[in-house]
Amino acid sequence: MKVFAKSSRKAIRVLPTVQPGYLRPLIPDEAPQQPEKWEDVMADVERVIMPGVTHWHSPKFHAYFPTANSYPAIVADMLSGAIACIGFTWIASPACTELEVVMLDWLGKMLDLPQEFLACSGGQGGGVIQGTASEATLVALLGAKAKTMKRVKEEHPDWDDHTIVSKLVGYTSNQSHSSVERAGLLGGVKLRGLKADENLKLRGETLEKAIKEDLEAGLIPFYVVATLGTTNTCAFDRLDEIGPVANQYKVWVHVDAAYAGSAFICPEYRYLMKGIETADSFNFNPHKWMLVNFDCSAMWLKEPYWIVNAFNVDPLYLKHDMQGSAPDYRHWQIPLGRRFRALKLWFVLRLYGVDNLQAHIRRHCGFAKQFEALCVADDRFEIFGEVQMGLACFKLKGSNELNEALLKRINGRGNIHLVPSKVNDVYFLRMAVCSRFTETSDIDYSWKEVSAAADELLAEQKK
Amino acid sequence: MKVFAKSSRKAIRVLPTVQPGYLRPLIPDEAPQQPEKWEDVMADVERVIMPGVTHWHSPKFHAYFPTANSYPAIVADMLSGAIACIGFTWIASPACTELEVVMLDWLGKMLDLPQEFLACSGGQGGGVIQGTASEATLVALLGAKAKTMKRVKEEHPDWDDHTIVSKLVGYTSNQSHSSVERAGLLGGVKLRGLKADENLKLRGETLEKAIKEDLEAGLIPFYVVATLGTTNTCAFDRLDEIGPVANQYKVWVHVDAAYAGSAFICPEYRYLMKGIETADSFNFNPHKWMLVNFDCSAMWLKEPYWIVNAFNVDPLYLKHDMQGSAPDYRHWQIPLGRRFRALKLWFVLRLYGVDNLQAHIRRHCGFAKQFEALCVADDRFEIFGEVQMGLACFKLKGSNELNEALLKRINGRGNIHLVPSKVNDVYFLRMAVCSRFTETSDIDYSWKEVSAAADELLAEQKK
Repeated sequence: MKVFAKSSRKAIRVLPTVQPGYLRPLIPDEAPQQPEKWEDVMADVERVIMPGVTHWHSPKFHAYFPTANSYPAIVADMLSGAIACIGFTWIASPACTELEVVMLDWLGKMLDLPQEFLACSGGQGGGVIQGTASEATLVALLGAKAKTMKRVKEEHPDWDDHTIVSKLVGYTSNQSHSSVERAGLLGGVKLRGLKADENLKLRGETLEKAIKEDLEAGLIPFYVVATLGTTNTCAFDRLDEIGPVANQYKVWVHVDAAYAGSAFICPEYRYLMKGIETADSFNFNPHKWMLVNFDCSAMWLKEPYWIVNAFNVDPLYLKHDMQGSAPDYRHWQIPLGRRFRALKLWFVLRLYGVDNLQAHIRRHCGFAKQFEALCVADDRFEIFGEVQMGLACFKLKGSNELNEALLKRINGRGNIHLVPSKVNDVYFLRMAVCSRFTETSDIDYSWKEVSAAADELLAEQKK
Repeated sequence: MKVFAKSSRKAIRVLPTVQPGYLRPLIPDEAPQQPEKWEDVMADVERVIMPGVTHWHSPKFHAYFPTANSYPAIVADMLSGAIACIGFTWIASPACTELEVVMLDWLGKMLDLPQEFLACSGGQGGGVIQGTASEATLVALLGAKAKTMKRVKEEHPDWDDHTIVSKLVGYTSNQSHSSVERAGLLGGVKLRGLKADENLKLRGETLEKAIKEDLEAGLIPFYVVATLGTTNTCAFDRLDEIGPVANQYKVWVHVDAAYAGSAFICPEYRYLMKGIETADSFNFNPHKWMLVNFDCSAMWLKEPYWIVNAFNVDPLYLKHDMQGSAPDYRHWQIPLGRRFRALKLWFVLRLYGVDNLQAHIRRHCGFAKQFEALCVADDRFEIFGEVQMGLACFKLKGSNELNEALLKRINGRGNIHLVPSKVNDVYFLRMAVCSRFTETSDIDYSWKEVSAAADELLAEQKK
């Protein structure tokens, strides 16, 4: 297999030009009574769908973070579609559960996760494939909630559930992903967004100060999310400081490494996960940066029983004789049903091999550095924050309005696609390396686009 | 396309004989450093995976409810894997959002849902594809919670959120799926399991009595789940009674028709959804009985803004210029990321056509009736409850222990697979018609297996 084969490059816009509502007039109002022909349906994919697709896998796509796409993952998904079992319990398809258990061990070893997270250690811990990092954050929050409520009830047998819930407080950084705040809303608990330091990292002393304040106010700290690789700037919270503080106060530590976690398969990046032994749960998305098609969000828990027991509803039609001998993953997640997603992981790990996956990560990191060098060499621009992993944040020296105009112009030209972010009221542009087809020349091209847009904009402003 | 083509029938057990832990020794302890060959990986699918697969698509599989599998859905999923966009917002891939909006209209029209549920009506309502019915139940519960909390806060400005949540109470039948109870646990609210009537249907007067009791006790009724087609026996709650009662007391009505909802594409079954106009949300799984591979759970909401607004976290990197002109489905669901699942629906609806999908439903219903006739003709057996849709519940006349022994013997023979259930302390066997390849001869075969197991069991007991 050619691992980094160049894709065929058609000259299409990375971002489509369609307007909201474009699709409805292109197809009938109702489903057909009689079957149509395959040829007609496939032709409509070109006519109806492709004009409205944003091309996440174009080397010119630099928005959000990457989403994965590879032949091994697609073939494995086809197999999963053909087998089409639902793996909610062990007996519902033993291979589905068992491959997942072992794949999460393979992957955990690739990241050098502590033994307590691995099923092969023979302890309580283990991994599971969630659909998304958002779900992992929510599942961890619910586990933390269950664990703390049990402890508090023992300490205060007279307090009812709602009294305890009303006192719970969790923590995260003001740099964490929107899904963390959302998990708090969904879970019905307070989550405080603590201020990150000047390098956009959440620090241990900030957490400790907040915990002490809250304890003094009669609240019950129960959960902290440390982000390794924030969406805004790919900043890394100081897990080595946060973890010990949280452990001391019996606060569940969840690590959200959705994007950057893939980089921990390379030993040289593992210093960024220092303190991982203090975590209760860890999550990253092979479906972002590790060539496994969406959805495949890997999550490990040291004590999965807090999730399993807290929401365990066990009707007869789902019981089986082997209960307890193998995980019934339905208890580890929000949904009941689940696809055979471990196949994707198995195929990708075997058909690329660890070496090639490491090479993929290192290439992307190199491309971000290449972009950084181009940017730094142009006096009009500056890098925002530190370039980490495959993300370079940058801006024109000047106002937010100037940079908003720059982004609008870049995206308007239609050749590359970026999204912005804002930190401490500073608006900047995010250049994420996304495609597995990206080459040095693509980064040069993208920089030229940025530079040309700046030329236009600044020339106009001088008029 | 041969719509009901016979599959190639190898003589394999529907339920595998592997024991927990079978898989780990069959593969290495770690991922390979270097890429392996496709041939080796594909060979391992046969060696490692297939011996541990439960064959949900065998005509001899009668457990749980069906899960769908069809060529159109698999091909569409391949396309979805190849395009591999993430459709969290409209701009992230307009086709992904727009096809979903229109497909949910197509599907809603096929079921003759009230206009208020359809986006094409121009009102607030519309549909969305969730991963599973469990998530739909939870999303509806969270919407109902948000709506009621707003109302109660206006009535009692001095009450805080936790006080209100502690008073909320929802309702469902004691026959509803385990995921409903679980949604209550996940959402942190009380859910009462009300007693169904002698036909296992939840009745309006039962709901009204419970609401009145709770109001008198100072609680706040906010949510009721009516099940159309329960997992135990495929009983249908009396939505025509429940709905008006719930509407009167401002209680959100969610309809869980996960399995049986597919049957409403046939006009002759729509009497079972009488009262649908009183519902606030409706959900069924095309991935169960309508030939769309998992996952594709269709959900409609009359007022999606209760979900959209309640958990709306809106960071700059997810904003776009077209916000408000088209749904951003990230607000309609628990996860952030989402695959291009509407393609599966589009392909299945067009390549089968409504006529063939109706024929599929009617064939399955006929097979259940065929099984019922065979069962009724055997004096040793009796049907439990009413045979509805593709499910026949039955038992040997006699004790629970006798029937537990019968099920154990049937599954032990390994030729067909069933799961049991228990209602009002009566243990019975569920014979669900699952495969799209099922033929009359398969039902005869399955009945012979049941009968032969009974012969053995009863002969042994006479000794």
